[in-house]
Amino acid sequence: MKQTAENRCFDGRQLRYHHQSESLDCEMDFSIYLPPRAATYNVPVLYWLSGLTCTDQNFVTKAGGQRYAAEYGIAIVAPDTSPRGKEVADAPERYDLGQGAGFYVNATQSPWSRHYHMYDYVTRELPELVEKNFPVIPGLRSVSGHSMGGHGALICSLKNPGMYRSVSAFAPISNPVNCPWGQGCLDAYLGPDREVWKEFDAVELLRGGAQSLPLFVDQGADDEFLTEQLHIQDLEAVCRERNIDLKLRMHENYDHSYFFISTYIGEHIAYHAGFLTA
Amino acid sequence: MKQTAENRCFDGRQLRYHHQSESLDCEMDFSIYLPPRAATYNVPVLYWLSGLTCTDQNFVTKAGGQRYAAEYGIAIVAPDTSPRGKEVADAPERYDLGQGAGFYVNATQSPWSRHYHMYDYVTRELPELVEKNFPVIPGLRSVSGHSMGGHGALICSLKNPGMYRSVSAFAPISNPVNCPWGQGCLDAYLGPDREVWKEFDAVELLRGGAQSLPLFVDQGADDEFLTEQLHIQDLEAVCRERNIDLKLRMHENYDHSYFFISTYIGEHIAYHAGFLTA
Repeated sequence: MKQTAENRCFDGRQLRYHHQSESLDCEMDFSIYLPPRAATYNVPVLYWLSGLTCTDQNFVTKAGGQRYAAEYGIAIVAPDTSPRGKEVADAPERYDLGQGAGFYVNATQSPWSRHYHMYDYVTRELPELVEKNFPVIPGLRSVSGHSMGGHGALICSLKNPGMYRSVSAFAPISNPVNCPWGQGCLDAYLGPDREVWKEFDAVELLRGGAQSLPLFVDQGADDEFLTEQLHIQDLEAVCRERNIDLKLRMHENYDHSYFFISTYIGEHIAYHAGFLTA
Repeated sequence: MKQTAENRCFDGRQLRYHHQSESLDCEMDFSIYLPPRAATYNVPVLYWLSGLTCTDQNFVTKAGGQRYAAEYGIAIVAPDTSPRGKEVADAPERYDLGQGAGFYVNATQSPWSRHYHMYDYVTRELPELVEKNFPVIPGLRSVSGHSMGGHGALICSLKNPGMYRSVSAFAPISNPVNCPWGQGCLDAYLGPDREVWKEFDAVELLRGGAQSLPLFVDQGADDEFLTEQLHIQDLEAVCRERNIDLKLRMHENYDHSYFFISTYIGEHIAYHAGFLTA
C-alpha cells in the first residue's frame, strides 16, 4: 500500500492510497480522511460508497464532508466504484456498466467475474486494510452512499447484521431489479436469473425478511432519476409493511448532484456520529 | 445572457450563465450563487477570482462556500479566468499563459490584446451585468480570490478605491513582476516595459502609495509555490512600511489546494459579511 497524496483539510489529513486488491485482482485507489482527533486517538470510520461514473475523488473534492468529520472525530473512507485498469473488462460506450459501475456485487459471469467483486472489496478487504493500517477503532463502522452507492450502503448493511452501527443514503437505487440501471448491471454481472439479483437489492432483501438498522434516506424531489431509476416509493412501502424505521426526507427543488449531497452531508455525519461516538 | 445550469444548494440557487462579453469579445460562462435570502431581498455580492487553469466551476464545486453564503445572505459570483474559445489566442503547451491564465490585466500586445481584458471584465462589465440582472444591492461588493485570483482581488481593490467594501485573498501572487508566473504573463500581455507591469502588481501599487482597505490573507505554510511565486513576505514588508492593516495568517501543513481554501472560506465569507451586511 502506497500513499499517493496528502492534503491538510480542516486540521485533519486527506489521504489517498494505491494498493493491490486481492478481491478485485487489480490495483486500486482509495481515499481516507483522518480527523484531527486521529492524531491522538483511534477513531470510528464512516464508509462512503459513490455513484455511477465516480472514483474515490468525487466525494473527497465535492461533498465538503471533511468539516463535519473533523468536528465529530470520524474518519471517512471513500473507495473507487469498480475495479480499474487496462486488463479489467469494460463497456467503454456505457457509463452504467463496467469501469465506474461495479454496483457493489460479486460478479459470476464472464468477462466480469475475474475482477468485479466490489461487494467483497467494500465489506471485507477494505475494512481489514483500513483497520490494520490506520488509527481507527476496529469494528466501529457506519456506511453511507449516493445513488448506486446508496444502494451499496443499504445492501452492505442489510446483508451483514452487526457489521455497521448505522446506515444512511442519498437518493439510493432502492430496487435495482426493477430499474434500467440495475437490470443492465445485474444481468451482465450475475446472469439472467432474477432470483439471484434479489440478493443484491435492498427492497427485495427487506421483502424477504432481512433485519435492518434504522434507515436514514435523503432524496431530492426534483431528482431527474427519481421515477425511473431510484424507486424510493418501493423502499417506503416495504418499510411501512415490515414496520422498519425509515426516516425519509423529500427535499423540494433538490436534484441528484453533489450540490444536494453537500447540503445534507453534515446532517448525515452528525447522524452517524450519534451511533459511532456515543 | 442564457442560464445553462441551476442546482439547489443550501436552500439557495447555484446558477450558471453563458453570455457574449463585450470587453472580452467572446462568449463566456460565469456562475452565481444566490442565497435563500435573495428570494425575498436584494443581497450584497462577493466576487471570487480563481487561479491558473481554473474555470468558474472550480470554486463552485470544490470550495464549499455555499453553506456560508447561505448563512450570511451573500451572493457569490465566480467568473472564468480568461477569455475562451477557438478564436481566442492561446499557448496550449503552457498552463500559465493564455486560456485559463488571463491574470486580470488588460493586454496591450498582439495576439493577446484582442480578447485578454479580464481587468475590465471583472471590475466593470461583470458587476454591471450582475447588478442589472440579479436580486443584488448595487454597489455593495467585496472581492476575494486564490493565487492568480488573489492577485486579481488585491489589484482590483487597490486600483478602485470605493468599489469594494472589503478584500481578502488565499495564497495571492503578491508581487507578480518578480515571480516567474507573473513575468511570463505580464511580458506577453503588456510588453517588455516593467513600469507598465507595476500597475497590475499589489506590492508595487502599495510601494507607489496606493490607498488600501484592510487586507485579510490566508497562506499555507507548506504551499509548494510560496517561495518562488507568491512573495507574501514582500506584501508583509510593504504593509509594515506603509502602516497598512494586514491580517496575514500562516497555516502550518496547509498547501495550495482547494482543501486549504475549503477549510478557511467560511472565515473569509464571515469577514466580508461584517462589511457587507452590517
